[in-house]
Amino acid sequence: MHTGVWLVGARGSVAVTSIVGAAALRAGLTEPIGCVTEHPAVRSGALPPYTDLVFGGHDIATTSLVKRAEALAVAGVVPARLVDTLHHELTAVDEDIRPLPHATTQADAAAAMTADIAEFRRRHGLERVVVLNVASTEAAPEPHPAHDSLGALRAQLQTPDAVLPASSLAAYAAFEAGCAFVDFTPSTGARLPALHELAVERGLPYGGHDGKTGETLLKSVLAPMFAMRHLQVRSWSGINLLGGGDGATLAEPAANAAKSASKQRVLSETLGYQPDGHTRIEFVPDIGDFKTAWDLVTFAGFLGTPMRMEFTWHGCDSALAAPLVLDLARLAAAAHRAGRSGPLTELAFFFKDPLGDVDHSLAAQFVALAEFARTLG
Amino acid sequence: MHTGVWLVGARGSVAVTSIVGAAALRAGLTEPIGCVTEHPAVRSGALPPYTDLVFGGHDIATTSLVKRAEALAVAGVVPARLVDTLHHELTAVDEDIRPLPHATTQADAAAAMTADIAEFRRRHGLERVVVLNVASTEAAPEPHPAHDSLGALRAQLQTPDAVLPASSLAAYAAFEAGCAFVDFTPSTGARLPALHELAVERGLPYGGHDGKTGETLLKSVLAPMFAMRHLQVRSWSGINLLGGGDGATLAEPAANAAKSASKQRVLSETLGYQPDGHTRIEFVPDIGDFKTAWDLVTFAGFLGTPMRMEFTWHGCDSALAAPLVLDLARLAAAAHRAGRSGPLTELAFFFKDPLGDVDHSLAAQFVALAEFARTLG
Amino acid sequence: MHTGVWLVGARGSVAVTSIVGAAALRAGLTEPIGCVTEHPAVRSGALPPYTDLVFGGHDIATTSLVKRAEALAVAGVVPARLVDTLHHELTAVDEDIRPLPHATTQADAAAAMTADIAEFRRRHGLERVVVLNVASTEAAPEPHPAHDSLGALRAQLQTPDAVLPASSLAAYAAFEAGCAFVDFTPSTGARLPALHELAVERGLPYGGHDGKTGETLLKSVLAPMFAMRHLQVRSWSGINLLGGGDGATLAEPAANAAKSASKQRVLSETLGYQPDGHTRIEFVPDIGDFKTAWDLVTFAGFLGTPMRMEFTWHGCDSALAAPLVLDLARLAAAAHRAGRSGPLTELAFFFKDPLGDVDHSLAAQFVALAEFARTLG
Amino acid sequence: MHTGVWLVGARGSVAVTSIVGAAALRAGLTEPIGCVTEHPAVRSGALPPYTDLVFGGHDIATTSLVKRAEALAVAGVVPARLVDTLHHELTAVDEDIRPLPHATTQADAAAAMTADIAEFRRRHGLERVVVLNVASTEAAPEPHPAHDSLGALRAQLQTPDAVLPASSLAAYAAFEAGCAFVDFTPSTGARLPALHELAVERGLPYGGHDGKTGETLLKSVLAPMFAMRHLQVRSWSGINLLGGGDGATLAEPAANAAKSASKQRVLSETLGYQPDGHTRIEFVPDIGDFKTAWDLVTFAGFLGTPMRMEFTWHGCDSALAAPLVLDLARLAAAAHRAGRSGPLTELAFFFKDPLGDVDHSLAAQFVALAEFARTLG
Ligand SMILES: NC(=O)c1ccc[n+]([C@@H]2O[C@H](COP(=O)([O-])OP(=O)(O)OC[C@H]3O[C@@H](n4cnc5c(N)ncnc54)[C@H](O)[C@@H]3O)[C@@H](O)[C@H]2O)c1
Ligand SMILES: NC(=O)c1ccc[n+]([C@@H]2O[C@H](COP(=O)([O-])OP(=O)(O)OC[C@H]3O[C@@H](n4cnc5c(N)ncnc54)[C@H](O)[C@@H]3O)[C@@H](O)[C@H]2O)c1
Ligand SMILES: NC(=O)c1ccc[n+]([C@@H]2O[C@H](COP(=O)([O-])OP(=O)(O)OC[C@H]3O[C@@H](n4cnc5c(N)ncnc54)[C@H](O)[C@@H]3O)[C@@H](O)[C@H]2O)c1
Ligand SMILES: NC(=O)c1ccc[n+]([C@@H]2O[C@H](COP(=O)([O-])OP(=O)(O)OC[C@H]3O[C@@H](n4cnc5c(N)ncnc54)[C@H](O)[C@@H]3O)[C@@H](O)[C@H]2O)c1
Ligand code: NA
Ligand code: NA
Repeated sequence: MHTGVWLVGARGSVAVTSIVGAAALRAGLTEPIGCVTEHPAVRSGALPPYTDLVFGGHDIATTSLVKRAEALAVAGVVPARLVDTLHHELTAVDEDIRPLPHATTQADAAAAMTADIAEFRRRHGLERVVVLNVASTEAAPEPHPAHDSLGALRAQLQTPDAVLPASSLAAYAAFEAGCAFVDFTPSTGARLPALHELAVERGLPYGGHDGKTGETLLKSVLAPMFAMRHLQVRSWSGINLLGGGDGATLAEPAANAAKSASKQRVLSETLGYQPDGHTRIEFVPDIGDFKTAWDLVTFAGFLGTPMRMEFTWHGCDSALAAPLVLDLARLAAAAHRAGRSGPLTELAFFFKDPLGDVDHSLAAQFVALAEFARTLG
Repeated sequence: MHTGVWLVGARGSVAVTSIVGAAALRAGLTEPIGCVTEHPAVRSGALPPYTDLVFGGHDIATTSLVKRAEALAVAGVVPARLVDTLHHELTAVDEDIRPLPHATTQADAAAAMTADIAEFRRRHGLERVVVLNVASTEAAPEPHPAHDSLGALRAQLQTPDAVLPASSLAAYAAFEAGCAFVDFTPSTGARLPALHELAVERGLPYGGHDGKTGETLLKSVLAPMFAMRHLQVRSWSGINLLGGGDGATLAEPAANAAKSASKQRVLSETLGYQPDGHTRIEFVPDIGDFKTAWDLVTFAGFLGTPMRMEFTWHGCDSALAAPLVLDLARLAAAAHRAGRSGPLTELAFFFKDPLGDVDHSLAAQFVALAEFARTLG
Repeated sequence: MHTGVWLVGARGSVAVTSIVGAAALRAGLTEPIGCVTEHPAVRSGALPPYTDLVFGGHDIATTSLVKRAEALAVAGVVPARLVDTLHHELTAVDEDIRPLPHATTQADAAAAMTADIAEFRRRHGLERVVVLNVASTEAAPEPHPAHDSLGALRAQLQTPDAVLPASSLAAYAAFEAGCAFVDFTPSTGARLPALHELAVERGLPYGGHDGKTGETLLKSVLAPMFAMRHLQVRSWSGINLLGGGDGATLAEPAANAAKSASKQRVLSETLGYQPDGHTRIEFVPDIGDFKTAWDLVTFAGFLGTPMRMEFTWHGCDSALAAPLVLDLARLAAAAHRAGRSGPLTELAFFFKDPLGDVDHSLAAQFVALAEFARTLG
Repeated sequence: MHTGVWLVGARGSVAVTSIVGAAALRAGLTEPIGCVTEHPAVRSGALPPYTDLVFGGHDIATTSLVKRAEALAVAGVVPARLVDTLHHELTAVDEDIRPLPHATTQADAAAAMTADIAEFRRRHGLERVVVLNVASTEAAPEPHPAHDSLGALRAQLQTPDAVLPASSLAAYAAFEAGCAFVDFTPSTGARLPALHELAVERGLPYGGHDGKTGETLLKSVLAPMFAMRHLQVRSWSGINLLGGGDGATLAEPAANAAKSASKQRVLSETLGYQPDGHTRIEFVPDIGDFKTAWDLVTFAGFLGTPMRMEFTWHGCDSALAAPLVLDLARLAAAAHRAGRSGPLTELAFFFKDPLGDVDHSLAAQFVALAEFARTLG
């Protein structure tokens, strides 16, 4: 039986690259480069095969998948010939992408979203559906008492006042539909006590936050290197130049703040102290989908001798993110089947801002992930 | 009781920085930055304290330690005020540095070296002595049948033909003196079957090769990152610009070849394939003791999308190496006391070209090192 | 006869490095590296020799010159031994540095400043004095009608309302003292119609703004390269990481804005269009006096093919600025003697934000400077 | 009337990009980005318009132009849609590309080449033909007495011993056909006294050597920057990583040596001294047609303070070279028409290793070029 992958933000760059890539894998037209669940240490028979993933989702945009895929081909994110070849498959998925329902109360909106997901499962006869949030990053919501208990939340959702940000409403709807939920964005998602209560009540697992694809990925191996060598990191400063739709969103101060904060955790938690310096995000339209990040690290060695390293990372964010989305869909589905509920802290390997009080070293996270995959089998 | 540290190449940059640093630690004038044995995961009461290390060694050069330390201060490797303050301590160590003995046969030379070490132990009433090779890198020797068994080697050493390179003769002398031996250089050292036989016969441990202080240190965290993410590294090219005494030696083709080869192991063994590209070493006098390494990595992500990263490392090699020399002295002494003999493969964390068939991931090597330190206690 | 150099901000990094350097040149202890007036194309007998420059100035800080010089030596900006050797000379200059006068009206304050300068000239029997502003960057002032004519300004200065920023008051005082004025900072200085009127009335020349020492220096050769090759610059983004006193000041939004704006002129005026991207200034204390700037330029070649370059500049700002301060003192003194008055647009070579509608290509500016030097002789 | 452009190496990357680009310009499908003769300061009615250039040439390869263009499109050098659109035009040019004639003596080979060029001129009714060498770089030839006078050369060419390298034979044939000759490669070309004699005898101009497209272009603006600022360049080290056909050729030691030497001239001749350091060329297949060059410059400022800059250049060599090939064709044709003969030293702007004793500053070369263009009109 097949597994459904319901993408919130299904017409975005990450979503479309994931959908094109899964179709290409199914058609045998590509290798699973960048797919962590293909690594010998993680690979497991417990995971649904790539060929058994069926895609659908919500989006507020209406551009067709084929149009979005063509735009990504022009930008060099996906090969143009793949988009041509997979025209038929993309058109088919398009029919499973629904507009985001609007309603007078958030309770009604959530109910409509849940219905969309249930209908998707029925239509394709799916064993289970995993919901992944890959929509635009939103600002952190104002705190509200209804966030703290499920009872209060349910009551509040009936009123015309919206208390949940879109990502949390999506998580709520996913849980109501009996689905695992994974947040690939820095948005709030399931990170509210009320939603945790709901997930546990329904026996559903959830994961997040903020896919680790660029500068933070590097930090998660370089900061441990300095720590293991007992070197003293004096400053760590960086700048991320990015164009594309995500870039425009992140350049807005509120989203930028959410993202920059999650990028800093790895340093202070790995090193045990906070070095000087900041990380900036800048929107530069000409950069397009290939982000350029530059970081400068100054550090002291024996006898205080000052040293430095810098790196430039020139990566295609969507092409780095998409295989992780497939990995997370497979892992969350298997965790759901294995009866796991609550936060999947073992997925920290994938995230800039992982759930739980976890080790930020990529190597330690990989060991935890491999162990997790084993327990699912 | 105190532990002796006998340095082969005791007047070189690494040696002098180690000696200055140990004296500064003893005088409470500095922190053990860059000392791995100070990391909470490695720290152990089984290791001799810094304050109990006593230094001596061999060198072919005759410049006084104070002169060498002053030159390192001018070059920015060690603080000038430390050299002033520690003048007395450096002068004292100077008396324990012996010229390399010359003799008609290598047997006689080795006997004289052994006698120098024994005399050093006696003079300072040392519990044990560890011998560390930090002399200039030598070319790989011609293979010779006498390298393969201790009996054949002993016979050959009596003849006027020299079959052992200097580093291996130093290892031989160390073992004959009942000392553990660690090779911080890419030279042959104890890596000959005959010398392994001798070490095991005497119940002595040995370690090596080639301190991991710059580009290879970065490779040992970055290559695993690409591997864990299942990304495809297409090329990895690098250049190391260095001045200083070591730079001049390494620019000679034979030494350069020895060094470059040990730098490549980490890639092919971590990734499981050999990407395009090479690593060069260039001697640029003005660069002095602060090496600049630049690496370019091209890699493919999902759907073959081409990406790239580059880094520049600007490190003071001697200031990175010296704390590791102190670490290795402490660890080898404790291993000796704990009855370990033969190759110390658990020290791979420290080396570009480690003994044994070990994992090249720095994180895995750190786990192995921490476990090793625990077993010594 | 000697020439006086009156520095506003005489206890700052740039000022102290200039004073130490001039003393070292006089003592024959250093070469005029970085001094443009030593270039064969610019050198001229019309310029007062380095050995004939006498220093004094105003500052609001009171730390002694020797203390400031020692701090710069610790930071690696000037050699420690020079500071030791020149102790006597620095102490002598210290006596010619006056606290900034305070008074009820700006007219009175200016009169006191003028008196300080006149007294300095008298005391040392100087032929003429040049005033250079190297004080902290200030925010741009609110526009005021009194800025537009000398008459209105003089009237206004008598009132208790301060309408001139500190840099402009310094320019006013300089002109009243019969001195040429050069602004090495991005502050307003003499750039007000009322002050221009005064300078011309007194037959005095003035120059500025904002010494070109790092990223903008590079832009002034790289942007013309792209222009001459008719390549299309798509984006130019940069970040400047700096510590030191100047860094702290510039990190304040108002000063930062003043500085960033002057950094952008070179691009749009050289290329004829404004590419995407911005330049940031970040204060990172550990970076100290050695600024690190990183720039990424994306550009299109024939048939639109996308290409890119990036550079990292790691320069000691004060050591780059100080020789230019000496150059400007010599050139302004000679221009004064040669009877030049009003803006010295031929000094554009030295400035990020030059006076007048000038070519921003460094090479063109150099040709103009060499021609200027010839006309003085 | 039209102007012929005869390319030696007409099936190579530079040639094919030039041919595709000229056709695209003629069809109004692209802008002349990267074409220096479109710069307002150089543009001149004396130059034949792009639309009047007709292409032909010699090559030893036989792959069709369309195939080569398609390969360049896959590599990202030219847009794929252009190649599709211009299929017809490329096929037409293909018929004017001749195999390199083989003969018993070089005299006979040259005669056959001359005949090919003459036939091309006749067939298209061209006013004149310019010959440009864009063939693979060859090793420097052994010196031979016949290189020194035209008489000796003519006699020698009749014998079966080949004394001219291919590039010089091409120059000889070009001159015999009454054509101006430009060498875009580092090969010998017309740089032999005997060939100079021939060019002058026939009243023909020639230009070269080695198109300046990457690292050396940067050096020609950065080295003058250091010189104009009287800064002391201590070392300049670089590495060029390149794939592609040219990369494979240049990786051969002899060609590499020829190329590296021409890259160094700019430094010593601009600075007046030779800093430490070297420039390497490395063949890295995965890098393909987009060369990556990295350079590190260490320099001293005032009081000897050490500083550094580094840059990374990521350029598509063929897309940088092709517009210059069109520029050179236009300029050489106009110079020929204007009656110029002998070396065109005013073209130094285009070359790494320019003819004559010229200024290496790009800005000075640009002034000379603009002046040259004016004199042609
Ligand atoms: N690409 C990466 O490497 C990466 C890494 C970490 C996190 N992320 C996060 O993934 C998300 C997607 O990135 P992207 O590059 O695909 O962005 P994108 O702008 O291309 O796509 C976002 C999509 O979300 C849709 N959307 C917006 N609000 C929505 C809502 N309320 N409900 C449903 N759909 C909504 C938009 O219409 C759009 O189609 C972002 O939040 C980004 O921060 C991406
Ligand atoms: N500094 C680092 O980061 C680092 C890292 C890995 C390996 N190493 C290795 O450490 C060694 C020392 O480096 P360094 O920078 O101190 O070099 P150095 O040139 O400053 O010192 C080498 C010393 O060895 C002495 N010597 C030469 N031959 C000898 C012999 N046969 N017996 C005794 N002494 C001899 C020399 O006289 C000199 O004093 C080199 O082999 C280097 O490759 C250094
Ligand atoms: N260093 C460079 O490369 C460079 C380049 C361009 C411009 N500048 C400008 O030069 C100036 C000096 O730079 P710095 O690094 O020496 O800074 P700094 O902070 O070390 O020194 C500034 C000095 O000015 C003094 N000061 C402040 N306000 C004053 C006032 N109203 N009157 C008199 N003195 C006053 C301060 O007390 C301090 O001693 C800054 O404005 C900077 O932006 C420097
Ligand atoms: N691309 C640049 O930026 C650049 C810059 C400076 C110089 N150059 C020089 O331009 C030349 C061409 O570069 P490319 O990248 O096009 O190389 P390429 O290898 O793609 O093309 C060279 C062509 O020359 C042909 N050839 C070889 N020997 C020949 C001969 N004897 N007669 C006729 N044709 C012959 C080859 O078959 C091939 O088609 C090289 O010498 C290169 O060094 C290129
Ligand atoms: Na860099
Ligand atoms: Na870089």
